[in-house]
Amino acid sequence: MPSRGDDSLIRDSLISDLRALVGERGILTAASDIEPYLSDWRGLYHGQSPCVLRPADTQQLADAMKLLASRQVAVVPQGGNTSMVGGAMPDESGRQVVLSLARMNRIRDIDPVDMTMVAEAGVILKAAQDAAAEAGCLFPLSLGAEGSATIGGVLSTNAGGNTTVRYGNARELMLGLEVVLPDGQVWNGLRRLRKDNTGYALRQLFVGAEGTLGIITAAVLRLVARPRAREVAFCAVPDLAAALGLFRRFRDRDEASLQAFEYMSGTGVGLVLKHIPGTALPLAEAADHYVLVDLASPRPDAGLRTLIEAVLGEALEAGEVLDAAIAESTAQIQALWRLREEHSESQKLAGASVKNDVSVPVSRVPDLIRLATAAAERLMPGIRAVPFGHMGDGNIHMNFVQPEAMAPAAFLARSHDLMDQVNAVVRSLDGSFSAEHGIGRLKPDMLADWRAGAEFELMQRLKAAIDPAGLMNPGKVFEIPRS
Amino acid sequence: MPSRGDDSLIRDSLISDLRALVGERGILTAASDIEPYLSDWRGLYHGQSPCVLRPADTQQLADAMKLLASRQVAVVPQGGNTSMVGGAMPDESGRQVVLSLARMNRIRDIDPVDMTMVAEAGVILKAAQDAAAEAGCLFPLSLGAEGSATIGGVLSTNAGGNTTVRYGNARELMLGLEVVLPDGQVWNGLRRLRKDNTGYALRQLFVGAEGTLGIITAAVLRLVARPRAREVAFCAVPDLAAALGLFRRFRDRDEASLQAFEYMSGTGVGLVLKHIPGTALPLAEAADHYVLVDLASPRPDAGLRTLIEAVLGEALEAGEVLDAAIAESTAQIQALWRLREEHSESQKLAGASVKNDVSVPVSRVPDLIRLATAAAERLMPGIRAVPFGHMGDGNIHMNFVQPEAMAPAAFLARSHDLMDQVNAVVRSLDGSFSAEHGIGRLKPDMLADWRAGAEFELMQRLKAAIDPAGLMNPGKVFEIPRS
Repeated sequence: MPSRGDDSLIRDSLISDLRALVGERGILTAASDIEPYLSDWRGLYHGQSPCVLRPADTQQLADAMKLLASRQVAVVPQGGNTSMVGGAMPDESGRQVVLSLARMNRIRDIDPVDMTMVAEAGVILKAAQDAAAEAGCLFPLSLGAEGSATIGGVLSTNAGGNTTVRYGNARELMLGLEVVLPDGQVWNGLRRLRKDNTGYALRQLFVGAEGTLGIITAAVLRLVARPRAREVAFCAVPDLAAALGLFRRFRDRDEASLQAFEYMSGTGVGLVLKHIPGTALPLAEAADHYVLVDLASPRPDAGLRTLIEAVLGEALEAGEVLDAAIAESTAQIQALWRLREEHSESQKLAGASVKNDVSVPVSRVPDLIRLATAAAERLMPGIRAVPFGHMGDGNIHMNFVQPEAMAPAAFLARSHDLMDQVNAVVRSLDGSFSAEHGIGRLKPDMLADWRAGAEFELMQRLKAAIDPAGLMNPGKVFEIPRS
Repeated sequence: MPSRGDDSLIRDSLISDLRALVGERGILTAASDIEPYLSDWRGLYHGQSPCVLRPADTQQLADAMKLLASRQVAVVPQGGNTSMVGGAMPDESGRQVVLSLARMNRIRDIDPVDMTMVAEAGVILKAAQDAAAEAGCLFPLSLGAEGSATIGGVLSTNAGGNTTVRYGNARELMLGLEVVLPDGQVWNGLRRLRKDNTGYALRQLFVGAEGTLGIITAAVLRLVARPRAREVAFCAVPDLAAALGLFRRFRDRDEASLQAFEYMSGTGVGLVLKHIPGTALPLAEAADHYVLVDLASPRPDAGLRTLIEAVLGEALEAGEVLDAAIAESTAQIQALWRLREEHSESQKLAGASVKNDVSVPVSRVPDLIRLATAAAERLMPGIRAVPFGHMGDGNIHMNFVQPEAMAPAAFLARSHDLMDQVNAVVRSLDGSFSAEHGIGRLKPDMLADWRAGAEFELMQRLKAAIDPAGLMNPGKVFEIPRS
């Protein structure tokens, strides 16, 4: 067993050899410089790392990966560090090197004929959206962390967000990848083809692999036509079945214009109105259930106003909608969306909360919300269920805020019991325990449990085939095998 | 080395053991019964098989796979046997067992709320389309062989077709899979979730793997809203750039309504008019280039007629369209589509032909057609270039018909030279040598060449990890290693 002194020598030699490959700007070693990379923003984890690598380009990264592989040093890739599940955190050993993609932030190419963008992994999602807009197009992936999250991160986690119902997850918006493999080989799969049936779909494997199979360094992204018409409505509905019914009405009428369909509970909207300054209910009376409908089209003459009024009118008549407000300006659109987007913040201000990022088949969303709420209330009278999210794709953030009189710590002590209750409901409805946040460091035990058998074995076999030494983002997706 | 008699005993024992698992109806052994399974419809290959397995359900199939694995017998899955590349043909050894999915043809479930269908592998594509229509929905995958091709086959080859420009390939229309693995384990991944980030995207790996990693036995398919408005136009355009320009106009105006955008050459349409009875040019004058535009929307009030007239009017004014005919009835829509769909048949009637199923980035389609045509004409004066196909997704069938005076055999003797010319052009334009037909038995050498290096190595590693004994559809995708 090496002594403390040996460790230190190995570390110094590693850093010096890495510096020779990536240059002075490509490596951080001072504790104060490294610190920001060692904690996740939710405050769930705090790790250690001998240095942070910040290569300038794919070749530097590949050279560094070769060196790290030869020394058997593990690598933890990090983009915008916005993981909800600790997916970009090193462990506490101080032996895992954090690899930041932040400096690889060039948009290499944007083509309004092919409707593609070639972006490096470190490009911030918002910057990609802006570049697409400048080229007269739309890059439709949109989520809360878009000001920090990076293209490498959203692909490695197959991020979802508000527009999945229309455009799919990150996976569906990707045509090609460049990946540095665990041994430092570069795979250039930056093809911008809509049809290419030549062997196994490798690019699909790296999307959502959370950096455990290799490092995504660049991607060909799909762009779509820029919307030129938009209509947004905020609706009170009598019950969960009516919310689903309203979704079906819009989807059936014109699914291509339906950019988002978001559910909110009366409790959740109430917390927003109470805790977030400047928010107001756009309806005369409060209700137990709300939905936000967002329609858009590249056609200025798409008749979206007629459509939204017609569908809401029919739904009012059928008793599926109690009241609705249609935004008359961009400012009003933003105000309506704010009622949805401030849900997380208002929950934080209301006390301790427990979050569940779950999904079920769309038809089971009412059951999910009803059964999970009932189970939580049985467990803990006074608990405030605040489910909200992407009803149109079956992904509900099944969150709970502590009872008003309870101590936060006492509430959080029960969080596993609560999650177990929710997950039992999700399982009974053929749902998923991680809809869009992934596994990271938080849920490997659940993956092993929920996907046990042929599926989990197959995943392990793929991991062993591509990263036999287990050096890629260890402890994420899979628990580290005890030696 | 076993003698002929040993072989025969082993074969008899295998058949008897298989029969015990799948029943009398689950196995064909008479030569005349087996014969239809041993030739592909293009007539490229003729193989041998000791028997044809036709299991009734997943359990029977899994039991048979376990037995075959234990005896080290290779398996060749077969759906509708419509592969363009011999993907479902056994070799000539007589040792590979053909596994027909034909009896597994139940639609297990169809749900118009979730907009999903659970179909077994043997369901014929047309039957899936019909079932979706009966439920008031659309299953949009559409291709020439849809009357024979099966769900297992279209998923295993990631089939494309006419509507990829709008709905994507088979991959994009699949939410979950049930797969029997090479060792006979059943993986039930029939989840109907739009968001499910729980580990590696296994289902993506089996789609397009051409049965070399396992047997897809059932799938959750995505349905979309049924179109209620449609407009189809047949247009003469002055040149290839104008064809691309017209595509961009429609896509930019309303990409969601653009169901298909097909290119045809003047030569190709001329062959259709000459050889196919009952066809007629809907325009006053013949041209060198044509396109077919197909718009559809679930909204009866989508204003598609206004849209198509406006875009064609602008394009006429800009000189991008010479003349156009808009269909006024379903019969006229069919007549316009017939000019496109009879391309293969008319080429066959015009003499010997060489086919290239290639793709390039959409922006390079004009270059592809121009350069490949020029190269072929240099090689063989008098050759008739008849490129046609899915301009909107970059997939052109770059076909050539023999010079009129040439003997077919003499022409076909040059087919490899011709294909090499086309492929050199495709490669220079960052395209693919197999856009939608896959690799099969026809193109493993090209896969090894075009994808050489990290990509091909990775594919081999996946194959070895999932099918270590190499028993799944050997000789497809990869060449059989020489022992």
